[in-house]
Amino acid sequence: MQNEFRKHIEEHFPELLQNKFLLACSGGLDSVVLAHLCNQCGLDFSLAHCNFQLRGTDSDQDEQFVRELAKQLNKSLWVEHFNTKAYVNDHKVSVQMAARELRYDWFKDLMAKHQIKTLVTAHHADDNLETFLINLSRGTGLKGLSGIPAKTDMISRPLLPYSRVQLSEYAKENNIQWREDRSNAETKYLRNKIRHDIIPLLKETHPTFLHNFQTTQRNLQQIVAISDIHLSNLKKELFREDGEVVRISTEALLALDPIGAYMYGLFNAYGFTAWSDVVQLITAMSGKEIRSKTHRLLKDRDELILGKIEEEQINSYTIEETTTAIEEPVAMTITLVNNIGETGPDVLYIDKETLKYPLVLRKRQKGDYFYPLGMQGRKKLSKFFKDEKMDVFSKEKQWLLCSDTDIVWVVGKRLDNRFKITPSTKKILKITLN
Amino acid sequence: MQNEFRKHIEEHFPELLQNKFLLACSGGLDSVVLAHLCNQCGLDFSLAHCNFQLRGTDSDQDEQFVRELAKQLNKSLWVEHFNTKAYVNDHKVSVQMAARELRYDWFKDLMAKHQIKTLVTAHHADDNLETFLINLSRGTGLKGLSGIPAKTDMISRPLLPYSRVQLSEYAKENNIQWREDRSNAETKYLRNKIRHDIIPLLKETHPTFLHNFQTTQRNLQQIVAISDIHLSNLKKELFREDGEVVRISTEALLALDPIGAYMYGLFNAYGFTAWSDVVQLITAMSGKEIRSKTHRLLKDRDELILGKIEEEQINSYTIEETTTAIEEPVAMTITLVNNIGETGPDVLYIDKETLKYPLVLRKRQKGDYFYPLGMQGRKKLSKFFKDEKMDVFSKEKQWLLCSDTDIVWVVGKRLDNRFKITPSTKKILKITLN
Repeated sequence: MQNEFRKHIEEHFPELLQNKFLLACSGGLDSVVLAHLCNQCGLDFSLAHCNFQLRGTDSDQDEQFVRELAKQLNKSLWVEHFNTKAYVNDHKVSVQMAARELRYDWFKDLMAKHQIKTLVTAHHADDNLETFLINLSRGTGLKGLSGIPAKTDMISRPLLPYSRVQLSEYAKENNIQWREDRSNAETKYLRNKIRHDIIPLLKETHPTFLHNFQTTQRNLQQIVAISDIHLSNLKKELFREDGEVVRISTEALLALDPIGAYMYGLFNAYGFTAWSDVVQLITAMSGKEIRSKTHRLLKDRDELILGKIEEEQINSYTIEETTTAIEEPVAMTITLVNNIGETGPDVLYIDKETLKYPLVLRKRQKGDYFYPLGMQGRKKLSKFFKDEKMDVFSKEKQWLLCSDTDIVWVVGKRLDNRFKITPSTKKILKITLN
Repeated sequence: MQNEFRKHIEEHFPELLQNKFLLACSGGLDSVVLAHLCNQCGLDFSLAHCNFQLRGTDSDQDEQFVRELAKQLNKSLWVEHFNTKAYVNDHKVSVQMAARELRYDWFKDLMAKHQIKTLVTAHHADDNLETFLINLSRGTGLKGLSGIPAKTDMISRPLLPYSRVQLSEYAKENNIQWREDRSNAETKYLRNKIRHDIIPLLKETHPTFLHNFQTTQRNLQQIVAISDIHLSNLKKELFREDGEVVRISTEALLALDPIGAYMYGLFNAYGFTAWSDVVQLITAMSGKEIRSKTHRLLKDRDELILGKIEEEQINSYTIEETTTAIEEPVAMTITLVNNIGETGPDVLYIDKETLKYPLVLRKRQKGDYFYPLGMQGRKKLSKFFKDEKMDVFSKEKQWLLCSDTDIVWVVGKRLDNRFKITPSTKKILKITLN
């Protein structure tokens, strides 16, 4: 296997012969065999080991094992300890995701600091097949089936052509020790079932099953690359960024054929996998909206508006009589003045004695109405929004300054008649948006 | 299941409620259940049964069974007998391919004759999963994984959401009989292993595995549709048809990025799956060629030339002294004349007494040379071809008229000095290309 590996490196990873690289080593079979093979080939590399501190003394023994391996191979080693659980809590991500983010952030830092261009990881053929089947079991798309590529800008994976059995045999033949990985107990049930029950049967279906599978994944990767380019060009053409949202002309979307395929291609990255819903939305009534886990897509006149779903927000703030300035949710100063100066969307004068404290800043509610300054009588807030041609995203962001249940000010847009300065006003309150 | 099926038809196959359709029925579980379900829903259809005559009395009993089913359901039935084995011999295709071609040709005829727009077939969820895994075992591409679509212009497959178990349970509950299919014994080993050993384990990996799998395949189908459109537009732009071949500018190909992905996308339909070979060919020496099972791709100066691999051809024809006209491989007339008229690429005069009969028409051979008329001395044929800027396809098509081992005429291009008319010529042979 060693000679074959050397040839494989020469043919497909010549950069590893020329420059020092970083080898990620957990202490498990795969990365330990990789380190030995690279060492046998006389390659120049340093080891990097992450201690995620998730499995108590087991984690520390893994670290100790890699320290000894580095000594044995006479390679330099960087070790980093991570408080993975804290990261999970802080970032609300899974342990797997946390470990991945911590690991790759650290690798990137290390590489930048030491001018190392390539990270080498020990992914092998069975990893790709297992992930393929796990994704298949849950339902997935092309990317979930197309596997990890052998090479990206930053990472090289020279073990991808080799099966776990080959690595294990090489380790036995060369009397190489490794640490059994006891992590991921939770995800292990499915992976073990796939590894020990299903994959051996699949491999019996064809003498070169694993090789054929790799060919398949390489074929899929080509289509991923092509469709990514096509769709990214299309997005550049159709997606118009507008502050925090993206606007897309429905006319342009309707011109795409087959429309369902394109809706899937354009919107599945935002979590919209039921593309028939997107297709229906294009011709739906203005105001209709669909949501994925992370995004919302809104029909607004002749556009679709794509926006992120915001984290849950505080929807009401109080303003005491003594308050002279607030920062949240809208920065404003509130002062008593003697005279009315220039007004404008950002400057407002109110008859203070018409107010009931504490004032409240809140978002719209169903049934809201007010008496817009300069108009006769009252108006539904929804009608006002419509006449102002506000889209749903803007409506949701609109703050209302209220006195008891009455709207005093549609902030930055319109004062209510009931609170305006009159000849009988005694105390003038000036509010300025900053 | 019946109500669910009815709803499924209403939602996704409304055309089956409105127009009479053709239902392909083998007599096996799937198509018999389909016929019963459609009948229970009050749909208007005729049955079509193919007797491929591959399994002796078994085939005839299947036919008889379907005849009785049609009577029982009070539906009209068309039956056709096929000489499948003869078709296999005549067309050099597999039995499976023969059955498929015969079946669909007949269905198309039937539908055209009776103005039926839709053929309904009984493919179900397990068929797609089995085919997915069979293709996976052999190595495949995106299309091999993306499954049969629920609907095409001609065919509707309303059973695709249902598993084989569901069909079998429905049959048992409703006391429906069917014929066990004993065909395809050869391919059955793999399919049975997949059906009985592997798929049950896969289904255990997730409570809704089969449903998730269908979602996956629908997702893949979207990407197929998108990449097909993108590539077909690209082909329109880059592929220039030139007689029997297609010419593609290497400069335009080199501008594609990622080039490997595009070479796969553009050429895998012609059997070129090792796209790195195609990438290398673009910058290879003129004259280099790679072949797939069906096509050849040739580097010729600043172009790639794509052509079909021709069936084996007769590479030499003889012309007797008495022959006055031939049709193959090149149509020409050969006559004795008294005077020389106008010459040209299609008309030639030779000194008959310099010839040794029978003359031979053959393709080029290694080491060929001749004495081109109007030149001093002899010239290698390869050099002559090169100076004429002939590409490999043209060179291979070039016929040579020979006398013994000497080239008399590079047909349509140049006479040999040794055979030209001289003052001492007594018998003038006139050859005219038709």
